[in-house]
Amino acid sequence: MGRTPAHPDHFDLQRVLEALVDPVRRSIVNQLDASGQDIACGGFDLPVSKSTATHHFNVLREAGLIRQHYVGTSRMNSLRRAEMDEAFPGLLDALTRAADRAQVVVALDA
Amino acid sequence: MGRTPAHPDHFDLQRVLEALVDPVRRSIVNQLDASGQDIACGGFDLPVSKSTATHHFNVLREAGLIRQHYVGTSRMNSLRRAEMDEAFPGLLDALTRAADRAQVVVALDA
Repeated sequence: MGRTPAHPDHFDLQRVLEALVDPVRRSIVNQLDASGQDIACGGFDLPVSKSTATHHFNVLREAGLIRQHYVGTSRMNSLRRAEMDEAFPGLLDALTRAADRAQVVVALDA
Repeated sequence: MGRTPAHPDHFDLQRVLEALVDPVRRSIVNQLDASGQDIACGGFDLPVSKSTATHHFNVLREAGLIRQHYVGTSRMNSLRRAEMDEAFPGLLDALTRAADRAQVVVALDA
């Protein structure tokens, strides 16, 4: 698939929820949402190994939640916020708001 | 626990999402939301056995999404909509709206 990984152009609620049920993946989404800008894979605060994080980024990308592209050797991540809001109005709003209100408990890397 | 099962009085986002990631459980929530009234366990349109359905009702109740009580020999289910909306504003709205827009694909009982 070359250096630009494949991204879906339609979104399945089941797949999106399976992506968002994981607390590490919600943390990635919340960090992107809070920053309002693209973040390199190495730039997130995550309690998991690099290879586990790569898996989580792949799940999010394949569900349509993030878009990835390279800048030099850095793989950058952007939240597909507008497309998600169009497909599932209010869903990311509800989850990022919930994260603001609650302590985000992130499971340790198993 | 007698005839009135225990219900949580606080809500955990992780547990709520783990309940809602299952399409049969989302279908139960959507049917309660659409009807606007209590529904007996036997009154739902679900593609699973009675014992599997009972498991799904238990998961929803333990996550705080539904309240159960007996009327005679019927176990009735009500959506804890106001409490969920207070705990996680917009979450049930987003999911029930998504169900309205998309075909709900429900996995067959395994």
